[in-house]
Amino acid sequence: MTDSTYISANVSYSSIEKPPFRVVSVGSGNWGTCVAKIIAENTRENPLLFERQVKMWVYEEDYNGEKLTEYINTNHLNEKYLPGIQLPDNLVAIPDLLEAVKDANIIVFNVPHQFLEGILKQLKGNINPKARAISCLKGLRVYQDKVELLTDIISQELGIHCGCLAGANLASEVAEQKFSETTIAYPIPDDYCSGDVDPTVLYTMFHRPYFHVHIIEDIAGVSIAGALKNIIAIGVGFVDGLQWGENAKASIMRRGLLEMIKFGQKFFPTSKVSTFCEESAGVADLFTTCTGGRNFKLAQRMAQTGKSAAEVEVDLLNGQSAQGLITAKEIHHLIKNKAYLDEFPLFETTYQILFHGVSIGILPYMLENKWSISKPNYSS
Amino acid sequence: MTDSTYISANVSYSSIEKPPFRVVSVGSGNWGTCVAKIIAENTRENPLLFERQVKMWVYEEDYNGEKLTEYINTNHLNEKYLPGIQLPDNLVAIPDLLEAVKDANIIVFNVPHQFLEGILKQLKGNINPKARAISCLKGLRVYQDKVELLTDIISQELGIHCGCLAGANLASEVAEQKFSETTIAYPIPDDYCSGDVDPTVLYTMFHRPYFHVHIIEDIAGVSIAGALKNIIAIGVGFVDGLQWGENAKASIMRRGLLEMIKFGQKFFPTSKVSTFCEESAGVADLFTTCTGGRNFKLAQRMAQTGKSAAEVEVDLLNGQSAQGLITAKEIHHLIKNKAYLDEFPLFETTYQILFHGVSIGILPYMLENKWSISKPNYSS
Repeated sequence: MTDSTYISANVSYSSIEKPPFRVVSVGSGNWGTCVAKIIAENTRENPLLFERQVKMWVYEEDYNGEKLTEYINTNHLNEKYLPGIQLPDNLVAIPDLLEAVKDANIIVFNVPHQFLEGILKQLKGNINPKARAISCLKGLRVYQDKVELLTDIISQELGIHCGCLAGANLASEVAEQKFSETTIAYPIPDDYCSGDVDPTVLYTMFHRPYFHVHIIEDIAGVSIAGALKNIIAIGVGFVDGLQWGENAKASIMRRGLLEMIKFGQKFFPTSKVSTFCEESAGVADLFTTCTGGRNFKLAQRMAQTGKSAAEVEVDLLNGQSAQGLITAKEIHHLIKNKAYLDEFPLFETTYQILFHGVSIGILPYMLENKWSISKPNYSS
Repeated sequence: MTDSTYISANVSYSSIEKPPFRVVSVGSGNWGTCVAKIIAENTRENPLLFERQVKMWVYEEDYNGEKLTEYINTNHLNEKYLPGIQLPDNLVAIPDLLEAVKDANIIVFNVPHQFLEGILKQLKGNINPKARAISCLKGLRVYQDKVELLTDIISQELGIHCGCLAGANLASEVAEQKFSETTIAYPIPDDYCSGDVDPTVLYTMFHRPYFHVHIIEDIAGVSIAGALKNIIAIGVGFVDGLQWGENAKASIMRRGLLEMIKFGQKFFPTSKVSTFCEESAGVADLFTTCTGGRNFKLAQRMAQTGKSAAEVEVDLLNGQSAQGLITAKEIHHLIKNKAYLDEFPLFETTYQILFHGVSIGILPYMLENKWSISKPNYSS
C-alpha cells in the first residue's frame, strides 16, 4: 500500500468526522525520533483513529548551516540524532514547544531526564487539560528517603494521566526495523470516559510488525526495572572485565533481577513480580543492557585496568556520566537511610566497588547467603 | 588450611564415630568429574558428616597406553575429560560400577542420557536400598503423549528417592573455580528419618565459595528448564545468525521463558514460576545457554548459510546431534498430540524452521498476539 492510499482514506473520512487523536512527541533525540517514526507510520495507516500528521518538538539547533527542524522537514531525515533513517513525511518537526503541543490529546515524552523539569514548567497550563501522556523516559527520581516515579512527576506537574513505555529497545536496531518487543504500562484512569485513550488506542499507535507491544498496568514495575538494570549492568561488567565467564555473568543478572523485585516490593508494593520476569521492560531489557552499553563498559574497563570509576569516565566516556553510577549512589543512600542495606547485597557491593575502592573479588562473599534473609513474595 | 589439617581432624573424629554419609559419583565426564571434585573438596572439610573418600565410577578406557582410572588415581588429573584441573587426592576413580556404589548412601548420577538406562539396569538390586540420589543429568524423557522426569525414572528403577542439580554451570568455568551458582531440587521424602540426607547435608556437600548452592523442592521446574532451554537457544541462534541484533535475541529469550513456564503448568502443575524466574537453573542457565554452545551455534550457522539442520550437523558438529534439535522434535509431537500447538508458538516455529524448511523470517509473525491466548497463572 502506498502512502497516497492513506491520504485519500484520510480525506474521505475526515470529511465526515475528524479522527479523535492528535499525537505530539516531545523530544527528538535518538530514541525520541525513533518512537515518533513508529507513531507516524501507524497514524497514516489508521486515519479513523489518528490525525495523520504527528508533531515532534525539536530543540532547535544548527545542523550544517541549516536549522535542524527545516532539515528534518525538507529531507525527512534526522541526520543529527538518527542518521540514515528515512522518516515518514507525516512526521513534522516543530521548534516551538507550545505550538507543538497546542492541539495534542496524546503527548509522548522522550527527552533526557535533566531537561524534564524545565519542559514541564513551560507546558504547565499550556496543554489540553484532558490530554493523556506516555513517558518514554526511563526510571525513577530517587531522594534520600523516598522514590518517585517519573510518570507521577509528569502527572502532578501537568494534571494529566501518564503511562510509560520501555523494553529491550536499542534505538538503532528499532530504527532499522529489526524485530523487538516493548512494554507499555497504562492503567485506565479514574476519569476515563467513552472514546478515551485505552489499550487498543495505544496498541494501534505503537505496535508495528517489527515492534511488538504488550500492554500492562504496572507503571512502577516498568519504571523500577528501567532504573535498576543499569546498576546490574555494572555488576556484570565487573565480572566480565575480570574474565570470570558466562556463569558468573548469569549469576549477577539473576541476583540483580531478584533485587529489582525486592526493591519493588519494598517501595512500590503494588508492583508485580510478573512485570520483572515476563515483560520486555523487565527480564528482556536486562539481557540487552547487560551485554553492552555504557554502564557495562565502564565497569568492564575498571576491572581490566584497576582504575577508579572517575578515571574511566574520563578515558572512556569523555567525562560523561554513566547513568548506573548515579543510580547506584542514589539507591545506596536510600536503602541505607531505610536500613535495607543487607537486603540488597548486589546493589550495595556494586556501590562500594564504584565509590569506595572495595575489591571486585568480594562480590561472591557479599552475595553468599544474603538473599535467604527475605525472599520475594511470589503471590503478588 | 592445608589438606593435612583435614586428615588429622578426620582421624581424630573417626576414632569416635564413623561419619554418616558415603558419597559416590556415577559418571566421570567433563561435568561428572567437576562435580565429583567439588564434593571431594567438601567431604575433606567436613569429616563429621562425610566419609573423606569420594568414589567416582569411571567407564574404563585406555588413556595414552594406561588405564584411565589408574591415570586419574596416580596423577589426580582426568586429562581425558577435564584437562588441566587438579583433583583432590580423596577422589578415587573406580572402574567397577557395583564396587563403586557398594557402600554409598548418597549416589550422584552424572552420565550421558543415553547410558542412563543401562546403568540403572546394572544397579538395580545392587545398591543400598536406603540410599538417596541426586541427578545431574539435564532434562526430561518425552514420549508422544506424556513426559517423565529423569529423577522419577531413577527413583522408579532403583526404588530410592532422587533430587536433581542444575544451573548456569559451564563445566570448564566451574572447574577453574570461577564464581557461579547452582540449584538443587530435593523435596524431603516421605520416609525421611532423623539423620537422613536433608538440605543442610546437600548444602555442605555441594556449596563452595566459588559454587553457590540454593536448595528448593521443585524438581519438575528444574528439569523442564534444563530441557527446554536448548530449544530456546536455537531460536536465539537463528535471529543472531540473521544479525537481527540484541533486542531480537532478548525477545526470543523472554518468549522462551514464558513458554517454559507454560509447559510446566500444562504438564507438571506443581512446578513453580519462581523456579524459572528466580533460580540459577531457570533464568540464569537460560542466559548462558543462549550466549553460545552447540544449539546456539547450529542455528546461527543455519541462518548464516541457508543450510538445513542436517547439513550443519555434518559441517559443524562432525555429525553429532545437538540436544535441542532432538528436544524440539519430541516437544512438537507431544504438544501436537495434546492439541497445544497454538500455545507454544516459539517452540513450534523453531521446530518448523528446523525440520520443514520454514523461513526464519516468519518468527515475529508467529509470535504476534499468540501469547495472549493464555497467560501463566502467577499465583502458582
